[in-house]
This record gives sequence, structure tokens and C-alpha cells, in this order.
Amino acid sequence: MSENHVPPTTVQRLPVYLRCLLRAQSQRMALINSVGIAEMAGTNAAQVRKDLSYLGEYGTRGVGYDVDELAAHLSRWLGIDTERRAAIVGFGRLGSALQSYPGFEDRGVRVVAVLDADSAKVGTAVDGMTVESIEDAKEIFAREGVEIAIITVPSEAAQRATDKVVEAGVKAILNFAPASVEVPSDVVLRQADVAAELQILSFHLNRLRGARSTR
Amino acid sequence: MSENHVPPTTVQRLPVYLRCLLRAQSQRMALINSVGIAEMAGTNAAQVRKDLSYLGEYGTRGVGYDVDELAAHLSRWLGIDTERRAAIVGFGRLGSALQSYPGFEDRGVRVVAVLDADSAKVGTAVDGMTVESIEDAKEIFAREGVEIAIITVPSEAAQRATDKVVEAGVKAILNFAPASVEVPSDVVLRQADVAAELQILSFHLNRLRGARSTR
Repeated sequence: MSENHVPPTTVQRLPVYLRCLLRAQSQRMALINSVGIAEMAGTNAAQVRKDLSYLGEYGTRGVGYDVDELAAHLSRWLGIDTERRAAIVGFGRLGSALQSYPGFEDRGVRVVAVLDADSAKVGTAVDGMTVESIEDAKEIFAREGVEIAIITVPSEAAQRATDKVVEAGVKAILNFAPASVEVPSDVVLRQADVAAELQILSFHLNRLRGARSTR
Repeated sequence: MSENHVPPTTVQRLPVYLRCLLRAQSQRMALINSVGIAEMAGTNAAQVRKDLSYLGEYGTRGVGYDVDELAAHLSRWLGIDTERRAAIVGFGRLGSALQSYPGFEDRGVRVVAVLDADSAKVGTAVDGMTVESIEDAKEIFAREGVEIAIITVPSEAAQRATDKVVEAGVKAILNFAPASVEVPSDVVLRQADVAAELQILSFHLNRLRGARSTR
């Protein structure tokens, strides 16, 4: 697979397409065309065809895509055809919320461990898990097959927590702390930025208001 | 302002640029060029120049952008030069986590109300606020100047909560429930999808592994 050539903006849209296909499956659709995917995904059909073309040729012209086949293919590309295991680092309000977040179900990712630096929290039982010490990250990650760390510590502890999970061998990090952290070049880092989502909505509110005032 | 012509992918990057500029301000930088912004934002300089060109010409060739001026300009475009007020709808673990999320500070958005449909939760005090009934959404939103609703109810309640806030006059919604909801065409909806972030990381893990195995 020549994954290196898939543009980042296409990678960003793949989970959205997969979500649309899961919805199509739940509606018992067998086939879907690029127009159908685009409508659900909020993009246009040409973009869908271009994005999917990076993953190889799967649709049949005039017929569309086999929903199950394309969903399986996307899952493979996203590396979630076998379950991807994640750990939450930081058992505060957000860590606790994400530990029980129902949105990971059926999306190929499972939270299998919760870590914290605070010895007062270590040992707390949470929905069938027990909060463990970040000092034991390496052993915990090896034992549970953890490949992704979800950082939910306060900003001032974010770099320290990141260093710990990198030391423990994790190569993929989702940082929810509203602070920039540094990682080595062989580690993939994504910044979860809820404020950015709200700013994008705010941009659209301005536009809606502008559209109304010029009508 | 001709905001209608700004492509959605550019809009997505504007909050990232603003975040970089705030970081530059904290480092007491007066000027920054497109290369500097691109490095912080994880994109390339041509993209930065193109994106910013949609907002008008602000940089000086060979000198770069005035950090304070560009930050103020971006804030205006994002409609956060005056504080944008949001309400959390659904006082569960995630709603509680977002209500106290420190990442909204200095990003132009303030959570000013927390609503729930459960009468047992109404009246609960939370960090200087009191959980109020979703039945009173219209009055609460008018009183607090709420323009954005953040939906953090369980999936099965997401559409009902969305309908309530739309009825109450909100035109911008961020949905954290892992369920599709429908809104009228004059309402902007964004789906917060944490699982998608993890799937993108998973994609990169596959790529890293592929890169290692072909070396």
C-alpha cells in the first residue's frame, strides 16, 4: 500500500466516509454512489471519488460502491479492522468522560487503561477498570497492547505526561490539554481542539448574519 | 466582507493560525512570516499565504505579518473579537468536563449556561452556575446571550435536545453525541468526533509501520 501519498486532507475525510457507510449499512443499503456518500458527508461527489481513488479503484462506474466492501476497505486503511487499543492519561473530569464515551463503540477503538500521576487516584475503580500509575506506563501498555495515548491532564502537566507515554513506547497521541507539546519525529501527535470547533461555528454565525443583512 | 467565498478547508485552518499567533504573542514576537506560521501550524507557507489572502492582504512582502494585527484580524473574522457565548446541553460526565474545560479561556468563547432535561439534575450548582431546565432554553439563551449550543446528551436524546435548542433560536450547534442529528438549513451544525481523531492516528500508525518494514 502506498499510504505515503494520501494527502492529509483526504486522511481527515476517511473517518467521515466510514461513518457514512456505517449509517448506510444500518439503513440496509447494499450499494452507494459518490453522490450518496457526498450528501451524507457534506462534501461533493468529485471530492469523494478523488479521495477514494487514493485507496485504489473500488467503485463500478454507473453502479457505485458496494457498501460492505468499501466499509471493510476503509477500516483496513484506517487500521481499525482489528481493534486499536488506547489508554487515557489523566483521570480528571475529561478523562472520566472519555473513558465512558459511547462514541468509540463500533468505531474500532477501545479504551483499555486509565493512568494518572496522582497516587490518590491510583486504585480508583472506573467502569470495570482501575486507575493505574503513569510510572507503570510501559508495563501497562505492553500488557494491554496500547498503541494510542489520549492525554487529558491539565495544561501544565501535558508535556510531562507526553514524555512519559513516549518513553513507554507509544507512537500516537491525541492531546486534549490546551497546551502545545513536543514529540519526537517518529511519534504522531494530534491536538484535540474543542475551542477551534466553536470558533468555526462562530465564523459561520458571522456569515449567516452578513447574509441576512444584505438580503 | 465577502466571507461566503472562503473555502471550508480554509475556515478549518483559521483557528489553528490564530492559536499559532497567540503562541507567538506569548513569545513576544512582533512579526511573523508565512514560513513561521506554517511551521507552528504544521502546514506549508504557500497554504498559509493562500488562506490568509482570502481575508484580504495584510502581510508586507519580505517582512511578514504584524502578529498583533493579524491576530486581531483573525479574531474579527472568526467572530470572537467580542466574546461568543455558549451553553452546554446535557449535564453528564462530558457536559461537566466541558463546562470546566480550561481550553476555552482566551479563545473567545465562554460557557455561560448548563441545561439538562432531567429534573433531578436541575438546580445542581456547578462552578458558579446552576443547571437549568432545557424547557426554559429560550428564556435562558435570551438572558445570557447564548449563540452556540454544545450538545452532550446521550445519543438517543440528541435529536430531541437539538430540536429544543433550535426552537429556542440557536443557529450554531456542536454535537458531541455520537449520533446524526438533523437541523434546519439556516442552522450550522458541527459534529465533534473524537473517534475520528483516533482513526486518523490509527491510519498514521499503519503508515509508520509500513515505512519501517520497507526500510
